[in-house]
Amino acid sequence: MKKPQRRNPRPVRPAKGERELIRRIAALLPGGGRPIGFGDDMARLEAGAGGLLWTTDMLMDGVDFDSRAHAWAQIGRKAMAVNLSDCAATATRPVAALCAVALNDGLSMDDAVALFRGVLECGTEFDCPVSGGDTNSWAQPTVVCIAVAARPEPDCAPVTREGARPGDLVWLTGAVGGSLLGRHLRPEPRIREALEINRRLAPRAMIDISDGLAVDLWHICEASGCGAWLDESLLEAAIHADARRLAEKSGSPPLEHALYDGEDFELITALPADAPGETCAQLGLIRVGQFTAERELVLRRAAGTCEPVEIRGWEHFRA
Amino acid sequence: MKKPQRRNPRPVRPAKGERELIRRIAALLPGGGRPIGFGDDMARLEAGAGGLLWTTDMLMDGVDFDSRAHAWAQIGRKAMAVNLSDCAATATRPVAALCAVALNDGLSMDDAVALFRGVLECGTEFDCPVSGGDTNSWAQPTVVCIAVAARPEPDCAPVTREGARPGDLVWLTGAVGGSLLGRHLRPEPRIREALEINRRLAPRAMIDISDGLAVDLWHICEASGCGAWLDESLLEAAIHADARRLAEKSGSPPLEHALYDGEDFELITALPADAPGETCAQLGLIRVGQFTAERELVLRRAAGTCEPVEIRGWEHFRA
Repeated sequence: MKKPQRRNPRPVRPAKGERELIRRIAALLPGGGRPIGFGDDMARLEAGAGGLLWTTDMLMDGVDFDSRAHAWAQIGRKAMAVNLSDCAATATRPVAALCAVALNDGLSMDDAVALFRGVLECGTEFDCPVSGGDTNSWAQPTVVCIAVAARPEPDCAPVTREGARPGDLVWLTGAVGGSLLGRHLRPEPRIREALEINRRLAPRAMIDISDGLAVDLWHICEASGCGAWLDESLLEAAIHADARRLAEKSGSPPLEHALYDGEDFELITALPADAPGETCAQLGLIRVGQFTAERELVLRRAAGTCEPVEIRGWEHFRA
Repeated sequence: MKKPQRRNPRPVRPAKGERELIRRIAALLPGGGRPIGFGDDMARLEAGAGGLLWTTDMLMDGVDFDSRAHAWAQIGRKAMAVNLSDCAATATRPVAALCAVALNDGLSMDDAVALFRGVLECGTEFDCPVSGGDTNSWAQPTVVCIAVAARPEPDCAPVTREGARPGDLVWLTGAVGGSLLGRHLRPEPRIREALEINRRLAPRAMIDISDGLAVDLWHICEASGCGAWLDESLLEAAIHADARRLAEKSGSPPLEHALYDGEDFELITALPADAPGETCAQLGLIRVGQFTAERELVLRRAAGTCEPVEIRGWEHFRA
């Protein structure tokens, strides 16, 4: 569901590529309805309040990781973490995982075991045992595909992208930007934070930042039928130190990195305007903007001017 | 979990390749126990009698299918069918599926949609809706990875590979061999048959034939701690017409094709010796041998002699 950051992000063009493919898949589904589960963070596996949800993410060598630069244990950890981040995005608790691999023929047995060790250790860290999988090999680059099932906490419904309303505030679980300096390799799924937010703050909508703050916030806006503004002054507190460091190299302002870099895996959540500030502070949340009725994404500059935020990120499949 | 037939099967060498990898993964799991779910047809997702099971199978272009020769809808159908065949092998009823893809950049939008149509139509045929997935693209050959969750019928436990006992009879749901002539492209998961067998015949063990009758029967023997003999005369009724046709081309005897060809997706089941023959006949089952205490696989020739059956099939990952 998530598209990790690429070195060369391309703008999302609506009605093309992956979104068009998802639309056409949706048309094949019974009722021809909205493509629930494709493009969402998790899909329903069981009906009912406490029913299981599940998700799958496929990572490919040369696209989502680089086996020439990254250790296999790190790659395995990342493959599990991006799936667990989908659980965080829906405020559900992971139950178990499956892990299927197509290993490049050149991998040694030790590399293959290291890959699985990374997967299993990350699972253990978040109480998500790996219950099975499928091991294959081939002459092409390595592919890792994980599926995770998760369950909402008792009396807490899963959070979707759909419920944000004009007037709700935009909050982040942490500072963003510059993940390419290394954080992209060790994503920290915000599951505990998400469960706390869901239990204490009645969030209206939530998503994890995989493609970037701007585009992932826009995903909430699209699903919720609203827009949002982000405030430059508020965003100061949400610019990661890595974004500032990367800005020195890239020449782009740190704010650009905060808005458009991907693979942070912090959460964006829509909270009611009257959400208790003390609780938000206890949870380390950072307020960066507000949802609006106008279906556009706007940056309010510290100088008082407004400008549109670009909706850009990576999109797969552009046939 | 299943390894479809390849043009050039290599003998399974114990303690090498995939089995060694699975053993080493198992050693990483809590308790270092047996690798439940890796190498089995399905893994436990939920505890308890009626709890969900799940499975995943990854198919790669050039290994499990050939996109130059096969239609994309057929490839999608096959990807779903091999997963549903795992449900059949455990006598569970599919509930829902996830489908992740890495599409080769050269695919047209119509090809991509055809692939998903194949997946969805096969799912619909077996009451298994696709509830979500992950769409990616890359410059490498296409990969399709499906996960399926399934549930045992009320008052019917899932069937494993473990319960066969010496004296139990070896039954097949249908004739086997020669699937390369075309049946390998349109596998028919034997879910309905499996549920009937489980409801009416108290099967002790079951597996679907993906690698071949000989090696998959041996998988039951290994898991159950026993051996088996197959009878040449009984096998006459289990040699598919395609096996005879292929034998004319290959020069191998039809029996060889029945024993060693893969991708039939018929079921092998261990039934108690007193299982009612009338019910077995009603279900179209074919008796081909018997389980034994000796841990070996033997062919009883019509002439009265006995010879060992080769344990050979495809094994992934031979580092």
